[in-house]
Amino acid sequence: MRDFSHDHRWLSINTATVRRSHGVDLPLPRIIDACARRGIRAISPWRDQVAAAGLDTVSKLVKAHELELSGYCRGGMFPAADAPGLAAARDDNRRAVDEACELRAACLVLVVGGLPGALAGRPAHKDIAGARAQVRDGIAELLEYARPRRMPLAIEPLHPMYAADRACVNTLEQALDLCEELDPARDPAGPPALGVAVDVYHVWWDPKLQAQIGRAGRRRLLAFHVCDWLTPTTDLLNDRGMMGDGVIDIPRIRGWVEAQGYAGYSEVEIFSTGNWWRRGHDEVLDTCIARHRSAV
Amino acid sequence: MRDFSHDHRWLSINTATVRRSHGVDLPLPRIIDACARRGIRAISPWRDQVAAAGLDTVSKLVKAHELELSGYCRGGMFPAADAPGLAAARDDNRRAVDEACELRAACLVLVVGGLPGALAGRPAHKDIAGARAQVRDGIAELLEYARPRRMPLAIEPLHPMYAADRACVNTLEQALDLCEELDPARDPAGPPALGVAVDVYHVWWDPKLQAQIGRAGRRRLLAFHVCDWLTPTTDLLNDRGMMGDGVIDIPRIRGWVEAQGYAGYSEVEIFSTGNWWRRGHDEVLDTCIARHRSAV
Repeated sequence: MRDFSHDHRWLSINTATVRRSHGVDLPLPRIIDACARRGIRAISPWRDQVAAAGLDTVSKLVKAHELELSGYCRGGMFPAADAPGLAAARDDNRRAVDEACELRAACLVLVVGGLPGALAGRPAHKDIAGARAQVRDGIAELLEYARPRRMPLAIEPLHPMYAADRACVNTLEQALDLCEELDPARDPAGPPALGVAVDVYHVWWDPKLQAQIGRAGRRRLLAFHVCDWLTPTTDLLNDRGMMGDGVIDIPRIRGWVEAQGYAGYSEVEIFSTGNWWRRGHDEVLDTCIARHRSAV
Repeated sequence: MRDFSHDHRWLSINTATVRRSHGVDLPLPRIIDACARRGIRAISPWRDQVAAAGLDTVSKLVKAHELELSGYCRGGMFPAADAPGLAAARDDNRRAVDEACELRAACLVLVVGGLPGALAGRPAHKDIAGARAQVRDGIAELLEYARPRRMPLAIEPLHPMYAADRACVNTLEQALDLCEELDPARDPAGPPALGVAVDVYHVWWDPKLQAQIGRAGRRRLLAFHVCDWLTPTTDLLNDRGMMGDGVIDIPRIRGWVEAQGYAGYSEVEIFSTGNWWRRGHDEVLDTCIARHRSAV
Protein backbone atom coordinates (compact mmCIF):
# COMPACT_ATOMS: atom_id res chain seq x y z
CA MET A 1 0.00 0.00 0.00
CA ARG A 2 1.38 3.37 -1.01
CA ASP A 3 2.39 5.89 1.62
CA PHE A 4 0.38 9.08 1.06
CA SER A 5 1.58 10.83 4.20
CA HIS A 6 4.41 12.84 2.65
CA ASP A 7 2.94 14.30 -0.54
CA HIS A 8 -0.16 14.49 -2.68
CA ARG A 9 1.17 12.97 -5.88
CA TRP A 10 -1.86 10.66 -6.09
CA LEU A 11 -4.53 13.15 -5.10
CA SER A 12 -7.15 13.99 -7.69
CA ILE A 13 -9.86 16.59 -7.21
CA ASN A 14 -13.30 15.83 -8.49
CA THR A 15 -14.32 19.32 -9.43
CA ALA A 16 -17.74 19.00 -7.83
CA THR A 17 -15.85 19.31 -4.53
CA VAL A 18 -15.21 23.00 -5.24
CA ARG A 19 -18.17 23.55 -7.51
CA ARG A 20 -19.11 26.42 -5.19
CA SER A 21 -16.83 28.71 -3.21
CA HIS A 22 -18.41 30.76 -0.43
CA GLY A 23 -21.74 29.48 -1.78
CA VAL A 24 -21.14 30.93 -5.27
CA ASP A 25 -20.54 28.88 -8.43
CA LEU A 26 -16.84 28.65 -9.22
CA PRO A 27 -15.96 28.36 -12.94
CA LEU A 28 -13.88 25.35 -13.99
CA PRO A 29 -10.91 27.43 -15.25
CA ARG A 30 -10.52 28.91 -11.78
CA ILE A 31 -10.75 25.45 -10.24
CA ILE A 32 -8.06 24.19 -12.60
CA ASP A 33 -5.84 27.14 -11.78
CA ALA A 34 -6.30 26.65 -8.04
CA CYS A 35 -5.42 22.95 -8.34
CA ALA A 36 -2.38 23.58 -10.53
CA ARG A 37 -1.02 26.19 -8.13
CA ARG A 38 -1.04 23.56 -5.39
CA GLY A 39 0.75 20.93 -7.40
CA ILE A 40 -2.39 18.81 -7.67
CA ARG A 41 -1.73 16.53 -10.63
CA ALA A 42 -5.19 15.34 -11.58
CA ILE A 43 -8.81 16.39 -11.66
CA SER A 44 -12.11 14.83 -12.63
CA PRO A 45 -14.42 17.46 -14.09
CA TRP A 46 -18.18 17.37 -14.55
CA ARG A 47 -19.72 17.82 -17.98
CA ASP A 48 -21.83 20.81 -17.02
CA GLN A 49 -18.72 22.60 -15.76
CA VAL A 50 -16.86 21.76 -18.97
CA ALA A 51 -19.78 22.91 -21.12
CA ALA A 52 -20.00 26.21 -19.25
CA ALA A 53 -16.31 26.94 -19.83
CA GLY A 54 -16.14 25.46 -23.33
CA LEU A 55 -14.57 22.11 -24.21
CA ASP A 56 -11.72 23.68 -26.19
CA THR A 57 -10.84 26.06 -23.39
CA VAL A 58 -10.81 23.29 -20.83
CA SER A 59 -8.80 21.00 -23.11
CA LYS A 60 -6.14 23.68 -23.58
CA LEU A 61 -5.99 24.45 -19.87
CA VAL A 62 -5.61 20.81 -18.98
CA LYS A 63 -2.75 20.42 -21.47
CA ALA A 64 -1.08 23.67 -20.44
CA HIS A 65 -1.02 22.57 -16.80
CA GLU A 66 -0.12 18.98 -17.71
CA LEU A 67 -3.07 17.78 -15.66
CA GLU A 68 -4.37 14.25 -15.88
CA LEU A 69 -8.04 13.38 -15.71
CA SER A 70 -8.63 10.54 -13.26
CA GLY A 71 -12.08 10.31 -14.80
CA TYR A 72 -14.78 12.27 -16.55
CA CYS A 73 -18.14 12.82 -14.83
CA ARG A 74 -20.36 11.51 -16.17
CA GLY A 75 -22.23 9.34 -18.65
CA GLY A 76 -25.13 7.05 -17.86
CA MET A 77 -28.77 7.84 -17.06
CA PHE A 78 -29.75 5.08 -19.49
CA PRO A 79 -33.35 4.22 -18.54
CA ALA A 80 -36.14 6.08 -20.26
CA ALA A 81 -39.89 5.82 -20.50
CA ASP A 82 -39.99 5.69 -24.31
CA ALA A 83 -37.91 5.16 -27.44
CA PRO A 84 -37.09 8.85 -28.01
CA GLY A 85 -35.84 9.05 -24.43
CA LEU A 86 -33.60 6.02 -24.95
CA ALA A 87 -32.24 7.49 -28.18
CA ALA A 88 -31.54 10.83 -26.50
CA ALA A 89 -29.62 9.06 -23.73
CA ARG A 90 -27.65 7.08 -26.31
CA ASP A 91 -26.68 10.21 -28.25
CA ASP A 92 -25.78 12.15 -25.13
CA ASN A 93 -23.60 9.30 -23.89
CA ARG A 94 -21.74 9.18 -27.19
CA ARG A 95 -21.00 12.89 -26.83
CA ALA A 96 -19.73 12.19 -23.32
CA VAL A 97 -17.31 9.60 -24.74
CA ASP A 98 -16.12 12.09 -27.34
CA GLU A 99 -15.51 14.74 -24.70
CA ALA A 100 -13.70 12.26 -22.47
CA CYS A 101 -11.46 11.36 -25.42
CA GLU A 102 -10.73 15.02 -26.16
CA LEU A 103 -9.76 15.55 -22.51
CA ARG A 104 -7.77 12.28 -22.42
CA ALA A 105 -9.67 11.08 -19.37
CA ALA A 106 -8.65 7.80 -17.80
CA CYS A 107 -12.27 6.67 -17.99
CA LEU A 108 -15.84 7.83 -18.42
CA VAL A 109 -17.70 7.34 -15.16
CA LEU A 110 -21.21 5.93 -15.57
CA VAL A 111 -23.97 6.85 -13.15
CA VAL A 112 -26.44 4.52 -14.76
CA GLY A 113 -29.80 6.07 -13.85
CA GLY A 114 -32.82 4.74 -12.00
CA LEU A 115 -36.54 4.79 -12.65
CA PRO A 116 -37.32 7.15 -15.54
CA GLY A 117 -38.62 10.46 -14.23
CA ALA A 118 -37.87 9.69 -10.59
CA LEU A 119 -35.12 12.30 -10.35
CA ALA A 120 -37.72 14.92 -11.21
CA GLY A 121 -40.12 13.44 -8.66
CA ARG A 122 -42.36 11.86 -11.31
CA PRO A 123 -41.38 8.20 -11.68
CA ALA A 124 -42.90 6.73 -14.83
CA HIS A 125 -43.18 3.25 -13.29
CA LYS A 126 -41.96 1.03 -10.44
CA ASP A 127 -40.23 -1.64 -12.53
CA ILE A 128 -36.67 -1.52 -11.24
CA ALA A 129 -35.89 -4.82 -12.97
CA GLY A 130 -36.96 -3.21 -16.23
CA ALA A 131 -34.78 -0.19 -15.56
CA ARG A 132 -31.86 -2.52 -14.88
CA ALA A 133 -32.42 -4.24 -18.21
CA GLN A 134 -32.31 -0.86 -19.94
CA VAL A 135 -29.07 -0.09 -18.14
CA ARG A 136 -27.54 -3.36 -19.33
CA ASP A 137 -28.62 -2.69 -22.91
CA GLY A 138 -27.47 0.91 -22.75
CA ILE A 139 -24.00 0.00 -21.51
CA ALA A 140 -23.72 -2.74 -24.13
CA GLU A 141 -24.52 -0.26 -26.88
CA LEU A 142 -22.21 2.45 -25.51
CA LEU A 143 -19.41 -0.08 -25.19
CA GLU A 144 -19.50 -0.62 -28.94
CA TYR A 145 -18.95 3.11 -29.39
CA ALA A 146 -16.32 3.55 -26.66
CA ARG A 147 -14.19 0.48 -27.31
CA PRO A 148 -12.73 1.51 -30.69
CA ARG A 149 -12.07 4.96 -29.23
CA ARG A 150 -10.16 3.33 -26.38
CA MET A 151 -12.22 5.08 -23.73
CA PRO A 152 -12.82 2.76 -20.75
CA LEU A 153 -16.26 2.90 -19.18
CA ALA A 154 -16.39 2.80 -15.38
CA ILE A 155 -19.68 1.70 -13.87
CA GLU A 156 -20.06 3.43 -10.51
CA PRO A 157 -22.32 1.48 -8.16
CA LEU A 158 -24.23 4.08 -6.18
CA HIS A 159 -25.43 3.76 -2.61
CA PRO A 160 -28.79 1.97 -2.44
CA MET A 161 -30.45 5.18 -1.25
CA TYR A 162 -30.09 6.40 -4.84
CA ALA A 163 -31.65 3.30 -6.43
CA ALA A 164 -34.87 5.06 -7.38
CA ASP A 165 -33.61 8.27 -8.88
CA ARG A 166 -29.89 8.12 -9.73
CA ALA A 167 -28.57 4.62 -10.22
CA CYS A 168 -30.14 1.18 -10.00
CA VAL A 169 -26.69 -0.44 -9.91
CA ASN A 170 -26.15 -0.45 -6.17
CA THR A 171 -23.44 -2.92 -5.23
CA LEU A 172 -20.00 -3.71 -6.52
CA GLU A 173 -21.16 -7.29 -7.04
CA GLN A 174 -23.95 -6.12 -9.33
CA ALA A 175 -21.58 -3.86 -11.28
CA LEU A 176 -19.09 -6.68 -11.73
CA ASP A 177 -21.84 -9.01 -12.90
CA LEU A 178 -22.51 -6.47 -15.66
CA CYS A 179 -18.82 -6.21 -16.49
CA GLU A 180 -18.48 -9.95 -16.85
CA GLU A 181 -21.63 -10.23 -18.94
CA LEU A 182 -20.87 -7.35 -21.30
CA ASP A 183 -17.09 -7.47 -21.43
CA PRO A 184 -15.88 -10.99 -20.75
CA ALA A 185 -12.14 -10.75 -20.31
CA ARG A 186 -10.97 -12.55 -23.39
CA ASP A 187 -7.61 -10.83 -23.26
CA PRO A 188 -6.63 -10.20 -19.65
CA ALA A 189 -3.51 -8.36 -20.77
CA GLY A 190 -5.36 -5.95 -23.05
CA PRO A 191 -6.66 -2.55 -22.04
CA PRO A 192 -9.88 -2.62 -20.04
CA ALA A 193 -13.02 -1.58 -21.88
CA LEU A 194 -15.45 -1.87 -18.98
CA GLY A 195 -14.77 -1.68 -15.26
CA VAL A 196 -15.90 -0.01 -12.08
CA ALA A 197 -15.40 3.18 -10.13
CA VAL A 198 -15.21 2.39 -6.41
CA ASP A 199 -16.41 5.30 -4.29
CA VAL A 200 -16.08 4.58 -0.58
CA TYR A 201 -19.20 6.63 0.15
CA HIS A 202 -21.33 4.26 -1.89
CA VAL A 203 -19.82 0.93 -0.92
CA TRP A 204 -18.29 1.22 2.55
CA TRP A 205 -21.28 -0.48 4.23
CA ASP A 206 -21.21 -3.60 2.01
CA PRO A 207 -20.36 -6.78 3.91
CA LYS A 208 -19.09 -8.27 0.64
CA LEU A 209 -16.88 -5.29 -0.24
CA GLN A 210 -13.49 -6.86 0.33
CA ALA A 211 -14.45 -10.02 -1.54
CA GLN A 212 -15.84 -8.09 -4.49
CA ILE A 213 -12.77 -5.85 -4.72
CA GLY A 214 -10.78 -9.05 -4.91
CA ARG A 215 -13.09 -10.33 -7.62
CA ALA A 216 -12.70 -7.09 -9.59
CA GLY A 217 -8.94 -7.33 -9.70
CA ARG A 218 -6.66 -4.75 -11.20
CA ARG A 219 -8.22 -4.91 -14.64
CA ARG A 220 -11.67 -3.77 -13.54
CA LEU A 221 -10.64 -1.18 -10.94
CA LEU A 222 -10.67 2.00 -13.01
CA ALA A 223 -11.18 4.68 -10.37
CA PHE A 224 -11.12 5.14 -6.59
CA HIS A 225 -13.15 7.94 -5.00
CA VAL A 226 -13.04 9.14 -1.41
CA CYS A 227 -14.99 11.30 1.00
CA ASP A 228 -16.64 10.30 4.29
CA TRP A 229 -20.00 9.25 5.79
CA LEU A 230 -21.13 11.59 8.55
CA THR A 231 -23.21 10.63 11.60
CA PRO A 232 -25.75 12.03 11.44
CA THR A 233 -26.15 12.56 7.70
CA THR A 234 -28.70 15.32 7.19
CA ASP A 235 -29.26 15.14 3.44
CA LEU A 236 -29.33 12.15 1.11
CA LEU A 237 -27.29 13.87 -1.61
CA ASN A 238 -25.35 16.87 -0.41
CA ASP A 239 -24.07 16.08 3.08
CA ARG A 240 -20.88 14.19 2.32
CA GLY A 241 -18.03 14.57 4.73
CA MET A 242 -14.33 15.37 4.34
CA MET A 243 -12.07 12.34 4.73
CA GLY A 244 -11.50 11.77 8.43
CA ASP A 245 -14.69 13.46 9.61
CA GLY A 246 -16.91 10.38 9.35
CA VAL A 247 -17.04 6.65 9.98
CA ILE A 248 -15.47 5.15 6.85
CA ASP A 249 -12.20 3.33 7.40
CA ILE A 250 -10.76 4.70 4.16
CA PRO A 251 -7.19 3.38 4.53
CA ARG A 252 -8.55 -0.13 5.00
CA ILE A 253 -10.55 0.06 1.77
CA ARG A 254 -7.66 1.67 -0.12
CA GLY A 255 -5.52 -1.19 1.11
CA TRP A 256 -7.91 -3.70 -0.40
CA VAL A 257 -7.95 -1.82 -3.71
CA GLU A 258 -4.19 -1.45 -3.88
CA ALA A 259 -3.69 -5.09 -2.96
CA GLN A 260 -5.23 -5.81 -6.36
CA GLY A 261 -2.61 -3.66 -8.05
CA TYR A 262 -4.52 -0.41 -8.34
CA ALA A 263 -1.92 2.35 -8.61
CA GLY A 264 -4.00 5.32 -9.77
CA TYR A 265 -5.38 8.43 -8.18
CA SER A 266 -7.42 8.80 -5.05
CA GLU A 267 -10.13 11.20 -6.18
CA VAL A 268 -11.88 13.44 -3.67
CA GLU A 269 -15.56 13.94 -4.44
CA ILE A 270 -17.56 15.87 -1.85
CA PHE A 271 -21.05 17.33 -2.28
CA SER A 272 -21.72 19.55 0.71
CA THR A 273 -24.31 22.27 0.56
CA GLY A 274 -24.19 23.02 4.27
CA ASN A 275 -20.45 22.99 4.90
CA TRP A 276 -17.69 22.72 2.31
CA TRP A 277 -19.49 24.52 -0.52
CA ARG A 278 -20.01 27.44 1.85
CA ARG A 279 -16.30 27.77 2.51
CA GLY A 280 -13.70 29.26 0.19
CA HIS A 281 -12.23 26.88 -2.37
CA ASP A 282 -8.68 27.63 -1.22
CA GLU A 283 -9.50 26.35 2.25
CA VAL A 284 -11.29 23.30 0.81
CA LEU A 285 -8.40 22.35 -1.47
CA ASP A 286 -5.86 22.82 1.29
CA THR A 287 -7.97 20.62 3.53
CA CYS A 288 -8.22 17.96 0.81
CA ILE A 289 -4.44 17.91 0.56
CA ALA A 290 -4.02 17.63 4.33
CA ARG A 291 -6.62 14.88 4.68
CA HIS A 292 -5.27 13.01 1.67
CA ARG A 293 -2.07 12.69 3.68
CA SER A 294 -3.61 11.94 7.07
CA ALA A 295 -6.91 10.13 6.48
CA VAL A 296 -6.77 8.35 3.11
CA MET B 1 -50.97 -14.84 -3.48
CA ARG B 2 -53.73 -13.75 -1.13
CA ASP B 3 -56.32 -11.23 -2.27
CA PHE B 4 -56.21 -8.25 0.08
CA SER B 5 -58.64 -6.10 -1.92
CA HIS B 6 -61.80 -6.96 -0.01
CA ASP B 7 -60.85 -6.77 3.65
CA HIS B 8 -58.04 -6.06 6.06
CA ARG B 9 -57.86 -9.38 7.83
CA TRP B 10 -54.07 -9.49 7.33
CA LEU B 11 -53.29 -5.89 8.14
CA SER B 12 -51.15 -5.21 11.16
CA ILE B 13 -50.31 -1.75 12.45
CA ASN B 14 -46.84 -1.10 13.71
CA THR B 15 -47.70 1.39 16.40
CA ALA B 16 -44.90 3.76 15.38
CA THR B 17 -47.14 4.61 12.43
CA VAL B 18 -49.50 6.47 14.77
CA ARG B 19 -46.97 7.31 17.43
CA ARG B 20 -48.06 10.92 17.00
CA SER B 21 -51.47 12.29 16.10
CA HIS B 22 -51.66 15.92 15.00
CA GLY B 23 -48.00 16.10 16.03
CA VAL B 24 -48.73 15.08 19.62
CA ASP B 25 -47.67 11.79 21.23
CA LEU B 26 -50.51 9.25 21.22
CA PRO B 27 -50.52 6.76 24.13
CA LEU B 28 -50.52 3.08 23.21
CA PRO B 29 -53.90 2.31 24.86
CA ARG B 30 -55.54 4.86 22.58
CA ILE B 31 -53.76 3.36 19.57
CA ILE B 32 -54.98 -0.10 20.55
CA ASP B 33 -58.52 1.19 20.97
CA ALA B 34 -58.47 2.93 17.59
CA CYS B 35 -57.20 -0.23 15.90
CA ALA B 36 -59.73 -2.50 17.62
CA ARG B 37 -62.60 -0.22 16.63
CA ARG B 38 -61.62 -0.65 13.00
CA GLY B 39 -61.43 -4.42 13.13
CA ILE B 40 -57.66 -4.37 12.80
CA ARG B 41 -56.59 -7.77 14.12
CA ALA B 42 -52.91 -7.22 14.86
CA ILE B 43 -50.41 -4.64 16.00
CA SER B 44 -46.68 -4.47 16.56
CA PRO B 45 -45.90 -2.14 19.46
CA TRP B 46 -42.63 -0.45 20.40
CA ARG B 47 -41.06 -1.05 23.77
CA ASP B 48 -41.01 2.62 24.77
CA GLN B 49 -44.76 2.84 24.11
CA VAL B 50 -45.37 -0.31 26.15
CA ALA B 51 -43.20 0.96 28.99
CA ALA B 52 -45.04 4.28 29.06
CA ALA B 53 -48.43 2.55 29.36
CA GLY B 54 -47.22 -0.28 31.58
CA LEU B 55 -46.66 -3.87 30.44
CA ASP B 56 -49.57 -5.27 32.49
CA THR B 57 -51.99 -2.69 31.15
CA VAL B 58 -50.96 -3.36 27.58
CA SER B 59 -51.07 -7.11 28.08
CA LYS B 60 -54.62 -6.91 29.41
CA LEU B 61 -55.75 -4.61 26.59
CA VAL B 62 -54.28 -6.89 23.97
CA LYS B 63 -56.07 -9.89 25.46
CA ALA B 64 -59.35 -8.01 25.94
CA HIS B 65 -59.39 -7.01 22.28
CA GLU B 66 -58.11 -10.41 21.14
CA LEU B 67 -55.33 -8.68 19.24
CA GLU B 68 -52.36 -10.55 17.87
CA LEU B 69 -48.85 -9.12 17.85
CA SER B 70 -47.23 -9.58 14.44
CA GLY B 71 -43.98 -8.67 16.17
CA TYR B 72 -42.49 -6.75 19.04
CA CYS B 73 -40.23 -3.75 18.38
CA ARG B 74 -37.49 -4.16 19.24
CA GLY B 75 -34.41 -5.92 20.52
CA GLY B 76 -30.90 -5.57 19.19
CA MET B 77 -28.38 -2.73 19.44
CA PHE B 78 -25.76 -5.33 20.32
CA PRO B 79 -22.43 -3.57 19.63
CA ALA B 80 -20.82 -1.65 22.45
CA ALA B 81 -17.50 0.01 23.11
CA ASP B 82 -16.77 -1.90 26.30
CA ALA B 83 -17.73 -4.90 28.41
CA PRO B 84 -20.28 -3.07 30.60
CA GLY B 85 -21.97 -1.82 27.45
CA LEU B 86 -22.17 -5.35 26.04
CA ALA B 87 -23.59 -6.64 29.33
CA ALA B 88 -26.20 -3.88 29.42
CA ALA B 89 -27.29 -4.74 25.89
CA ARG B 90 -27.52 -8.43 26.81
CA ASP B 91 -29.66 -7.73 29.86
CA ASP B 92 -31.92 -5.33 28.02
CA ASN B 93 -32.43 -7.81 25.22
CA ARG B 94 -33.43 -10.51 27.70
CA ARG B 95 -36.03 -8.15 29.12
CA ALA B 96 -37.27 -7.57 25.56
CA VAL B 97 -37.70 -11.33 25.12
CA ASP B 98 -39.61 -11.53 28.41
CA GLU B 99 -41.93 -8.70 27.35
CA ALA B 100 -42.49 -10.27 23.95
CA CYS B 101 -43.44 -13.53 25.69
CA GLU B 102 -45.84 -11.75 28.01
CA LEU B 103 -47.50 -10.09 25.02
CA ARG B 104 -47.46 -13.35 23.03
CA ALA B 105 -45.72 -11.67 20.11
CA ALA B 106 -45.07 -13.71 16.96
CA CYS B 107 -41.42 -12.67 17.13
CA LEU B 108 -38.99 -10.20 18.63
CA VAL B 109 -37.68 -7.95 15.88
CA LEU B 110 -33.94 -7.28 16.06
CA VAL B 111 -32.48 -4.00 14.88
CA VAL B 112 -28.95 -5.10 15.47
CA GLY B 113 -27.10 -1.82 15.97
CA GLY B 114 -24.15 -0.22 14.21
CA LEU B 115 -20.96 1.43 15.37
CA PRO B 116 -21.11 2.05 19.12
CA GLY B 117 -21.95 5.68 19.84
CA ALA B 118 -22.74 6.55 16.22
CA LEU B 119 -26.45 7.04 16.89
CA ALA B 120 -25.51 9.78 19.32
CA GLY B 121 -23.12 11.27 16.76
CA ARG B 122 -20.01 10.06 18.62
CA PRO B 123 -18.85 6.81 16.96
CA ALA B 124 -16.32 5.05 19.17
CA HIS B 125 -14.48 3.55 16.18
CA LYS B 126 -14.78 2.77 12.46
CA ASP B 127 -14.51 -1.00 12.65
CA ILE B 128 -17.75 -2.16 11.06
CA ALA B 129 -16.41 -5.71 10.77
CA GLY B 130 -15.86 -5.67 14.51
CA ALA B 131 -19.38 -4.38 15.11
CA ARG B 132 -20.70 -7.19 12.93
CA ALA B 133 -18.80 -9.72 15.00
CA GLN B 134 -20.41 -8.30 18.15
CA VAL B 135 -23.80 -8.60 16.49
CA ARG B 136 -23.20 -12.24 15.66
CA ASP B 137 -22.08 -12.98 19.21
CA GLY B 138 -24.98 -11.02 20.69
CA ILE B 139 -27.58 -12.85 18.64
CA ALA B 140 -25.98 -16.19 19.48
CA GLU B 141 -26.20 -15.42 23.18
CA LEU B 142 -29.75 -14.09 23.01
CA LEU B 143 -30.82 -17.14 21.06
CA GLU B 144 -29.89 -19.33 24.00
CA TYR B 145 -32.23 -17.27 26.15
CA ALA B 146 -35.08 -16.99 23.64
CA ARG B 147 -35.13 -20.55 22.33
CA PRO B 148 -36.37 -22.29 25.53
CA ARG B 149 -38.96 -19.51 25.89
CA ARG B 150 -40.15 -20.24 22.35
CA MET B 151 -39.74 -16.64 21.25
CA PRO B 152 -38.51 -16.47 17.63
CA LEU B 153 -35.94 -13.76 16.89
CA ALA B 154 -36.36 -11.90 13.61
CA ILE B 155 -33.25 -10.17 12.28
CA GLU B 156 -34.36 -7.11 10.33
CA PRO B 157 -31.81 -6.12 7.70
CA LEU B 158 -31.89 -2.34 7.60
CA HIS B 159 -31.26 -0.14 4.59
CA PRO B 160 -27.52 0.46 4.05
CA MET B 161 -28.02 4.14 4.86
CA TYR B 162 -28.41 3.02 8.50
CA ALA B 163 -25.24 0.91 8.55
CA ALA B 164 -23.31 3.36 10.73
CA ASP B 165 -25.83 4.16 13.41
CA ARG B 166 -28.73 1.69 13.49
CA ALA B 167 -27.92 -1.68 11.97
CA CYS B 168 -24.83 -3.12 10.33
CA VAL B 169 -26.88 -6.01 8.93
CA ASN B 170 -27.90 -4.45 5.64
CA THR B 171 -29.01 -7.11 3.19
CA LEU B 172 -31.26 -10.11 3.37
CA GLU B 173 -28.35 -12.23 2.22
CA GLN B 174 -26.27 -11.08 5.19
CA ALA B 175 -29.14 -11.73 7.61
CA LEU B 176 -29.68 -15.22 6.22
CA ASP B 177 -25.96 -15.96 6.49
CA LEU B 178 -26.33 -15.21 10.21
CA CYS B 179 -29.42 -17.39 10.49
CA GLU B 180 -27.69 -20.33 8.89
CA GLU B 181 -24.58 -19.90 11.02
CA LEU B 182 -26.37 -19.48 14.34
CA ASP B 183 -29.46 -21.62 13.80
CA PRO B 184 -28.72 -24.36 11.31
CA ALA B 185 -32.04 -25.93 10.44
CA ARG B 186 -31.57 -29.34 11.95
CA ASP B 187 -35.31 -29.82 12.22
CA PRO B 188 -37.02 -28.09 9.29
CA ALA B 189 -40.41 -29.02 10.69
CA GLY B 190 -39.76 -27.54 14.11
CA PRO B 191 -40.64 -24.02 15.17
CA PRO B 192 -38.23 -21.38 13.91
CA ALA B 193 -35.87 -19.91 16.48
CA LEU B 194 -34.13 -17.40 14.23
CA GLY B 195 -35.36 -15.81 11.05
CA VAL B 196 -35.79 -12.47 9.31
CA ALA B 197 -38.18 -9.55 9.15
CA VAL B 198 -38.50 -8.35 5.56
CA ASP B 199 -39.35 -4.66 5.37
CA VAL B 200 -39.81 -3.50 1.80
CA TYR B 201 -38.40 -0.08 2.67
CA HIS B 202 -35.06 -1.60 3.58
CA VAL B 203 -34.70 -4.21 0.86
CA TRP B 204 -36.67 -3.11 -2.21
CA TRP B 205 -33.53 -1.88 -4.02
CA ASP B 206 -31.63 -5.17 -3.68
CA PRO B 207 -30.96 -6.89 -7.02
CA LYS B 208 -30.74 -10.19 -5.15
CA LEU B 209 -34.00 -9.73 -3.25
CA GLN B 210 -36.11 -12.32 -5.04
CA ALA B 211 -33.35 -14.91 -4.87
CA GLN B 212 -32.75 -14.32 -1.17
CA ILE B 213 -36.46 -14.49 -0.33
CA GLY B 214 -36.42 -17.84 -2.07
CA ARG B 215 -33.41 -18.86 -0.03
CA ALA B 216 -35.13 -17.80 3.20
CA GLY B 217 -38.12 -20.00 2.60
CA ARG B 218 -41.17 -20.15 4.80
CA ARG B 219 -39.24 -21.15 7.88
CA ARG B 220 -37.12 -18.01 8.05
CA LEU B 221 -39.74 -15.46 6.97
CA LEU B 222 -41.08 -14.28 10.32
CA ALA B 223 -42.46 -10.83 9.46
CA PHE B 224 -43.33 -8.69 6.46
CA HIS B 225 -43.34 -4.89 6.79
CA VAL B 226 -44.63 -2.35 4.29
CA CYS B 227 -44.50 1.38 3.59
CA ASP B 228 -43.10 3.18 0.53
CA TRP B 229 -39.96 4.95 -0.74
CA LEU B 230 -40.69 8.53 -1.76
CA THR B 231 -38.91 10.45 -4.53
CA PRO B 232 -37.49 12.70 -3.31
CA THR B 233 -36.87 11.42 0.21
CA THR B 234 -36.11 14.41 2.40
CA ASP B 235 -34.96 12.73 5.61
CA LEU B 236 -32.97 9.56 6.14
CA LEU B 237 -35.17 8.32 8.99
CA ASN B 238 -38.55 9.97 9.17
CA ASP B 239 -39.76 10.47 5.60
CA ARG B 240 -41.30 7.11 4.82
CA GLY B 241 -44.26 7.07 2.48
CA MET B 242 -47.71 5.50 2.66
CA MET B 243 -48.06 2.40 0.49
CA GLY B 244 -48.80 3.52 -3.06
CA ASP B 245 -47.22 6.96 -2.74
CA GLY B 246 -43.71 5.86 -3.70
CA VAL B 247 -41.74 3.67 -6.07
CA ILE B 248 -41.77 0.27 -4.37
CA ASP B 249 -43.62 -2.45 -6.25
CA ILE B 250 -45.06 -3.85 -3.02
CA PRO B 251 -47.39 -6.47 -4.53
CA ARG B 252 -44.51 -7.96 -6.46
CA ILE B 253 -42.42 -8.36 -3.32
CA ARG B 254 -45.38 -9.69 -1.35
CA GLY B 255 -45.88 -12.19 -4.13
CA TRP B 256 -42.32 -13.44 -3.71
CA VAL B 257 -42.77 -13.73 0.05
CA GLU B 258 -46.08 -15.55 -0.20
CA ALA B 259 -44.73 -17.87 -2.88
CA GLN B 260 -42.54 -19.24 -0.07
CA GLY B 261 -45.60 -19.96 2.01
CA TYR B 262 -45.67 -16.85 4.18
CA ALA B 263 -49.25 -16.44 5.36
CA GLY B 264 -48.92 -13.90 8.14
CA TYR B 265 -49.63 -10.22 8.54
CA SER B 266 -48.60 -7.34 6.38
CA GLU B 267 -47.41 -4.81 8.94
CA VAL B 268 -47.52 -1.11 8.17
CA GLU B 269 -44.59 0.80 9.63
CA ILE B 270 -44.33 4.47 8.69
CA PHE B 271 -42.11 7.10 10.32
CA SER B 272 -43.17 10.46 8.96
CA THR B 273 -42.41 13.63 10.84
CA GLY B 274 -43.49 15.92 8.03
CA ASN B 275 -46.68 14.25 6.89
CA TRP B 276 -48.45 11.33 8.56
CA TRP B 277 -47.46 12.13 12.13
CA ARG B 278 -48.91 15.58 11.63
CA ARG B 279 -52.31 14.18 10.66
CA GLY B 280 -54.90 12.72 12.97
CA HIS B 281 -54.48 9.03 13.77
CA ASP B 282 -58.03 8.23 12.61
CA GLU B 283 -57.20 9.49 9.14
CA VAL B 284 -53.89 7.63 9.15
CA LEU B 285 -55.44 4.32 10.18
CA ASP B 286 -58.25 4.66 7.66
CA THR B 287 -55.66 5.36 4.97
CA CYS B 288 -53.65 2.32 6.03
CA ILE B 289 -56.75 0.15 5.62
CA ALA B 290 -57.54 1.61 2.21
CA ARG B 291 -53.98 1.26 0.94
CA HIS B 292 -53.65 -2.23 2.39
CA ARG B 293 -56.46 -3.15 0.01
CA SER B 294 -55.29 -1.18 -3.02
CA ALA B 295 -51.51 -0.99 -2.91
CA VAL B 296 -50.15 -3.95 -0.93
